Amino acid sequence: MNKKFLVAGGDLRFVKLAEYLAEKGCFVYTLGFDSGIVLPSKIHTLKSLMSLNERADYMILPLPVSNDGLNVNMPYSGNTLPVTQLCSVLKENGVAFGGRFSDKIIKMFEDRKIETVDYSVREEFSVLNAEATAEGAVQVAMEETAFTLSGQKILIIGMGRIAKLLVHILSGFNAEVTIAARKYSDLAWAEVYGCKNIHISELKKNLGNYSIIFNTVPAVILDRENLEELDKGCLVIDLASKPGGVDFDTAASLGIRAVWLLSLPGKVAPLTAGETIGKTIFNILEERGEADD
Amino acid sequence: MNKKFLVAGGDLRFVKLAEYLAEKGCFVYTLGFDSGIVLPSKIHTLKSLMSLNERADYMILPLPVSNDGLNVNMPYSGNTLPVTQLCSVLKENGVAFGGRFSDKIIKMFEDRKIETVDYSVREEFSVLNAEATAEGAVQVAMEETAFTLSGQKILIIGMGRIAKLLVHILSGFNAEVTIAARKYSDLAWAEVYGCKNIHISELKKNLGNYSIIFNTVPAVILDRENLEELDKGCLVIDLASKPGGVDFDTAASLGIRAVWLLSLPGKVAPLTAGETIGKTIFNILEERGEADD
Amino acid sequence: MNKKFLVAGGDLRFVKLAEYLAEKGCFVYTLGFDSGIVLPSKIHTLKSLMSLNERADYMILPLPVSNDGLNVNMPYSGNTLPVTQLCSVLKENGVAFGGRFSDKIIKMFEDRKIETVDYSVREEFSVLNAEATAEGAVQVAMEETAFTLSGQKILIIGMGRIAKLLVHILSGFNAEVTIAARKYSDLAWAEVYGCKNIHISELKKNLGNYSIIFNTVPAVILDRENLEELDKGCLVIDLASKPGGVDFDTAASLGIRAVWLLSLPGKVAPLTAGETIGKTIFNILEERGEADD
Amino acid sequence: MNKKFLVAGGDLRFVKLAEYLAEKGCFVYTLGFDSGIVLPSKIHTLKSLMSLNERADYMILPLPVSNDGLNVNMPYSGNTLPVTQLCSVLKENGVAFGGRFSDKIIKMFEDRKIETVDYSVREEFSVLNAEATAEGAVQVAMEETAFTLSGQKILIIGMGRIAKLLVHILSGFNAEVTIAARKYSDLAWAEVYGCKNIHISELKKNLGNYSIIFNTVPAVILDRENLEELDKGCLVIDLASKPGGVDFDTAASLGIRAVWLLSLPGKVAPLTAGETIGKTIFNILEERGEADD
Repeated sequence: MNKKFLVAGGDLRFVKLAEYLAEKGCFVYTLGFDSGIVLPSKIHTLKSLMSLNERADYMILPLPVSNDGLNVNMPYSGNTLPVTQLCSVLKENGVAFGGRFSDKIIKMFEDRKIETVDYSVREEFSVLNAEATAEGAVQVAMEETAFTLSGQKILIIGMGRIAKLLVHILSGFNAEVTIAARKYSDLAWAEVYGCKNIHISELKKNLGNYSIIFNTVPAVILDRENLEELDKGCLVIDLASKPGGVDFDTAASLGIRAVWLLSLPGKVAPLTAGETIGKTIFNILEERGEADD
Repeated sequence: MNKKFLVAGGDLRFVKLAEYLAEKGCFVYTLGFDSGIVLPSKIHTLKSLMSLNERADYMILPLPVSNDGLNVNMPYSGNTLPVTQLCSVLKENGVAFGGRFSDKIIKMFEDRKIETVDYSVREEFSVLNAEATAEGAVQVAMEETAFTLSGQKILIIGMGRIAKLLVHILSGFNAEVTIAARKYSDLAWAEVYGCKNIHISELKKNLGNYSIIFNTVPAVILDRENLEELDKGCLVIDLASKPGGVDFDTAASLGIRAVWLLSLPGKVAPLTAGETIGKTIFNILEERGEADD
Repeated sequence: MNKKFLVAGGDLRFVKLAEYLAEKGCFVYTLGFDSGIVLPSKIHTLKSLMSLNERADYMILPLPVSNDGLNVNMPYSGNTLPVTQLCSVLKENGVAFGGRFSDKIIKMFEDRKIETVDYSVREEFSVLNAEATAEGAVQVAMEETAFTLSGQKILIIGMGRIAKLLVHILSGFNAEVTIAARKYSDLAWAEVYGCKNIHISELKKNLGNYSIIFNTVPAVILDRENLEELDKGCLVIDLASKPGGVDFDTAASLGIRAVWLLSLPGKVAPLTAGETIGKTIFNILEERGEADD
Repeated sequence: MNKKFLVAGGDLRFVKLAEYLAEKGCFVYTLGFDSGIVLPSKIHTLKSLMSLNERADYMILPLPVSNDGLNVNMPYSGNTLPVTQLCSVLKENGVAFGGRFSDKIIKMFEDRKIETVDYSVREEFSVLNAEATAEGAVQVAMEETAFTLSGQKILIIGMGRIAKLLVHILSGFNAEVTIAARKYSDLAWAEVYGCKNIHISELKKNLGNYSIIFNTVPAVILDRENLEELDKGCLVIDLASKPGGVDFDTAASLGIRAVWLLSLPGKVAPLTAGETIGKTIFNILEERGEADD
């Protein structure tokens, strides 16, 4: 694709993203990788926005776009880049892609007639990241236990994307997986994917049977009442976004190991996660009819 | 569960359903199995509606409830049973369960203050039946080919419930499965479930690569233009509901074997399909708070 | 490969084998396909041995080579071909490949200084055929039951090649598979492949738990004493070579459905089975250093 | 089982083994866990051999029995225990179980009429440990890479126990696995287990295609000539016993990450590995007819 991109800020995922775009034939500028990162020579690394001598078709901002609401999220740079400075880098009709724009930043771009598109809300983005999350969770389960996954009784709470992919991965390990869910259709999916299943209303009385529990539901299901039912050797891995699904203080007081793993894709598989962003953006361009010219 | 059911009409699925209900502790009358079917003694087989001496809590009607809009669908009976005759068999607040009620029959029951509930629209019903459909489709693929599934290049069009379960089953056969779909999230699911994937817009130019094609999309995708691309030895199995996904006349004229498989659960796995209806009805009762008394 | 083959006799597998050889660049004569079979034009179909005007490098005989000890096994021909007539069709140092030569036929070839090689005793031949056997067995299990394989409790007796591949295939169907075997290492394989397992000495008391039993051990394990333990609805599929593993008369008298499936690869997947013979012969030639010239 | 065991020396596996024996009803003494390990109260922990007031039926020695040829391998003890001191702890006809006895130690026991049995040479021991090894290898592959296993092209050299279990585990990760092996039957197993496969003679020219390579063959296959073919980002995981399968110095000089993982079961899954020793010893006792009394 014969288009010009500016990748501004971000972590290792965005380095890989820049490479991905370049491999697809795009012309890629990057900004914000001045701290110990060497990019391939086909990427045009800018020292500062001043060095950009032309306007880009698209700008790609990190995930999240900004941590403080003002400056671009640039962990691999010693410099600071206010988002407002990016308002004049795009050609007319250019698009600013980003992950989790704040309302304020969206409005700021809108005021400059710049369209913003959030790649992180796309369904395919979530599916592909769920694979990375599930792999990362399994890796931690292996690291944190002194037994094989083979033969373990494992509980997964929830039957969404991440849970389905945990089931898929764990099938190769011969673990006996049980799904706890509220919706009967989720229990049906558990059944046809070869899992035991229990309705969430039956959870408490079954909790003592498992050596590993993965939670994927963002509600504090593993509260004191439920945590007290667990086997003391049980490992709890919480994959739910805030507020999480575990009362961690109580778990600690009961001597139960519980870990809360957030943002796994960028941590355990930044290269894959960067490709995922690239694929998602290409899909968006395809749908907009801007991919092939 | 201490409730009285009348199972009126239906095929082998409903024989199994009656057994399922009886095993759960329900009192079960059946009507419409007088032609060569012997039911277990714990089932109370009625010769006619006249023999019913009490009112039931629930009535279960077949799928579909009626083929002609007037009489209950009773393939295992030599008799005829107008749906209207069922209006006085239930206790007050009883429920008439059925599959695909016509509007007219719903109205008829409503006029008698009888609530109708269609078990066939429940999501868990569809998921569990999708497993039976996928198994039946794989069985036919094995019967209709003179090669092993192992090593075959197989295309599945669509990535809904049935497609996902085909992928799951075929994973044990080492087939190389490709998904063709329109939505990018479906292609992402294909990827994380280990399949190759192509956007539907790229379908035509890839069609010559497969020895078996399963279609799950109810739109005539395999029209003349596409059928002409197929390898002559390719087997096409259409699992889509009407209008189906294949121009069968053209397929025949091109010498391509194409089969349209409808209503597989009741055909290849009536016992499982009967249990599925039973599970679904119990879930409904659970949600209504009528399950445990 | 620039060699001349004569494929003499055999069933559909040998038609496919002839095609396979031709696709690899070999020059292929066939003999014995005069009854309703049309071979691709690149195959040189002989009406009789008289039509062969040159000597071949290799001759491929069927599996088994002969049914009566005298004539070539030629089910697709109305003619008769005594094996002795094949003694002068090969060049010096040519090889006669065949499946299950009788001692008498081996001696007959030896007396003419013709080397015989049995492709059917090769390990890779057995492994590849085990896949076809396992698929065929699963197909029959699906055809003979009115329930899905998903959710069934299935017993496999033995843990050899066919059993291992049954386990692999059934994993896609979510069946709960138990292995019964005598060797502890086989039970260990069952465990690491995700199966329940019982020592054969514990078989009898567990036999009532299964809806499908596959036997792969060639010894009558399912005798009256054991058959009496089975659930009446249980389906028994015997895959063992003679003497088989089931007392079929007793099974019939007890009302238990039992089927003995022999020679499945040639029946359910003749095309794959033909390729398997071709691959095996190429491996042999590779090992002999005769493959690449 | 109503027998008395002395577990002398060993690492965490032998702590778990002691628990396993106690759970089976055996009376268990341990010796050599005085350094920071607390055993369950049902285990009879000896401070020294002097505290043993009766003779045991069986003695279980570590794996390996001794590191220096003289003293028992006791990593969790500050004390030293010469193997010779164990010659009077068993009843008549008692058995000394151990892993990798040296010839000298075997002779020492024989001279005292004590039978030695090496549990580590049992096939089921190797199979169960292969699962732990394969899991550990996959864990390291995940830790050492910045991409998901899903979608990777992975090469496994060899098709023995560990390789087969790697294939099984990786199937849940959607990796594209290729097997390189010398025996055609191993390539056939690769095929029926859904892997691509290449004969070892074709290895070199394919080596550039993979992002992860697992070697399971104890011969230096990845020498300079082959290492030079690898992609620079490729991760090499060597699971072969000595001499290993990789020229590590050359790999380092070429900038290729290569890790040699030995004795994984005891490291990544000591609890499972301890159970494996227990299961193996019970199998041996079962075969000797000493299990049930």
